[in-house]
Amino acid sequence: MSILVVGSVAFDSIATPFGKVDDVLGGSASYFSTAASFFTDVNLVAVIGDDFPREHIDYLKSRNIDLSGLQQSRGETFRWKGRYDYNLNEAHTLETHLNVFESFQPEIPQHYRNAEYVFLANIDPELQLEVLTQVSNPKLVACDTMNFWIDGKKDELIRTLGRVDILVINEAEVRQLANEPNLIKAAEIVRAFGPKILVVKRGEYGVLMFGEGSIFSAPAYPLEEVFDPTGAGDTFAGGFVGYLASTRNLSEQNLRKAIVFGTVMASFTVEKFSLDRLKELDYAEISDRYRKIKLLTDFADIE
Amino acid sequence: MSILVVGSVAFDSIATPFGKVDDVLGGSASYFSTAASFFTDVNLVAVIGDDFPREHIDYLKSRNIDLSGLQQSRGETFRWKGRYDYNLNEAHTLETHLNVFESFQPEIPQHYRNAEYVFLANIDPELQLEVLTQVSNPKLVACDTMNFWIDGKKDELIRTLGRVDILVINEAEVRQLANEPNLIKAAEIVRAFGPKILVVKRGEYGVLMFGEGSIFSAPAYPLEEVFDPTGAGDTFAGGFVGYLASTRNLSEQNLRKAIVFGTVMASFTVEKFSLDRLKELDYAEISDRYRKIKLLTDFADIE
Repeated sequence: MSILVVGSVAFDSIATPFGKVDDVLGGSASYFSTAASFFTDVNLVAVIGDDFPREHIDYLKSRNIDLSGLQQSRGETFRWKGRYDYNLNEAHTLETHLNVFESFQPEIPQHYRNAEYVFLANIDPELQLEVLTQVSNPKLVACDTMNFWIDGKKDELIRTLGRVDILVINEAEVRQLANEPNLIKAAEIVRAFGPKILVVKRGEYGVLMFGEGSIFSAPAYPLEEVFDPTGAGDTFAGGFVGYLASTRNLSEQNLRKAIVFGTVMASFTVEKFSLDRLKELDYAEISDRYRKIKLLTDFADIE
Repeated sequence: MSILVVGSVAFDSIATPFGKVDDVLGGSASYFSTAASFFTDVNLVAVIGDDFPREHIDYLKSRNIDLSGLQQSRGETFRWKGRYDYNLNEAHTLETHLNVFESFQPEIPQHYRNAEYVFLANIDPELQLEVLTQVSNPKLVACDTMNFWIDGKKDELIRTLGRVDILVINEAEVRQLANEPNLIKAAEIVRAFGPKILVVKRGEYGVLMFGEGSIFSAPAYPLEEVFDPTGAGDTFAGGFVGYLASTRNLSEQNLRKAIVFGTVMASFTVEKFSLDRLKELDYAEISDRYRKIKLLTDFADIE
């Protein structure tokens, strides 16, 4: 079952304590769709400028990602420049040039419109809602957001959340959105806005998933070398929604497996810059790491 | 099998966003021994002043804690005053009065000296080593430490660690002790100092245990009300070492169960001030919460 993803395709310039790159392929839709493509087909909607090189198009196509919805506009592609210190949990934005992304109006191609699985990456919540008016009757809508929209468009965001099944969001943003410091209480407040399932990303501390009367805790995969965390959250979402779409099963047990697959995918992304690690990844490595997370968390019941 | 614990007994004055208390029973040995007492007998070594009330003595005795090693000196009991903001992971120390604790010289009573399980709570690493010269041939030595000793007595600490089997320590302190920002690498560096097993406390993010070629990740128990985190780490250690001593089994699987019991005990301590929650706790609540952590982390294998 294919997924519709709407988000950004961008050029990132990144400095970490371990290296530095300029204008590499980035953006939420790039990470999401590449990760999801290990599990299912992906239909991508985003915008690029006329400076976007053929090689990236070719790569995304090679992953069976449908690019009919990738608009090319006159001007430059969205550019982000950031820096990380040894605390790799925190990105310091140095420059943001929205460029063609500033006037992005998602247009969903006809053959994407009956998508059963939809992922609304972190874009303006009004555009997220606009996307939902263009799809007929999705089985599952997941979305991401960020502090910028919680600050500036909270009402619009809450309206969008009313039509969302799964919200994937950072820990600090859950607290901010709920205006509640306790995470468990904050999760209930945010779930009351609409999403029956709330997935809270906690960086190197893993993920908490809140459902109706249940919580699932998954650790991050422990890595000796976290090279660049950029894209980890979108890669996580791609693995998570990708696995759900490929299995078409929204049971609690399958949602938990999907969380672990998302965790696995994110753990690869952070090992190299951009999509470099995903580009060389094969499915055997994914299942091997899944099993390692199982061993990492396993303990015996008591009588 | 009984445990020997050497640490502090103190009066704490604490303010959190949810309340305030003055001169309540605290100290590493109080929390540790009370938590461990749910699993096994405890022999306590600490010092109190002549201001220490009978009721606390009576309470500790009621938990089958042997107080032959509790020295009473002229002067005041150790006092700590601290404050927490909404970020309950971080304690702000307002006042520390070591009082009689300043000249504490642990003297291990004769009938404690063949203790098989020893816990050296967070005290001067030279005193920790001094304790080890007084015990004959323990089966397991676990210890805690803190940034103060890593800053001021690193060489002495490393000497002590050479005789320790399990180090229980905070995440930031592992990084500091190893002088290495990556936690996985830092853990290997610290294990090379002596402790075959390193238990890293991460507050609301749970615990990581590093052994030979294995890592175990346990989440914290998700609480709607974290009232006061004081004593959580020592309570964790008490549950952890207490369960190990009661089962006399140091297999990886049993160490993992012990970590979860430690987590369970800590989750109760933070629900109220001081030992108030542990005082009303029964074993059925402990096993119930153990099962809930099992459900919280459970997910299916892949084929």
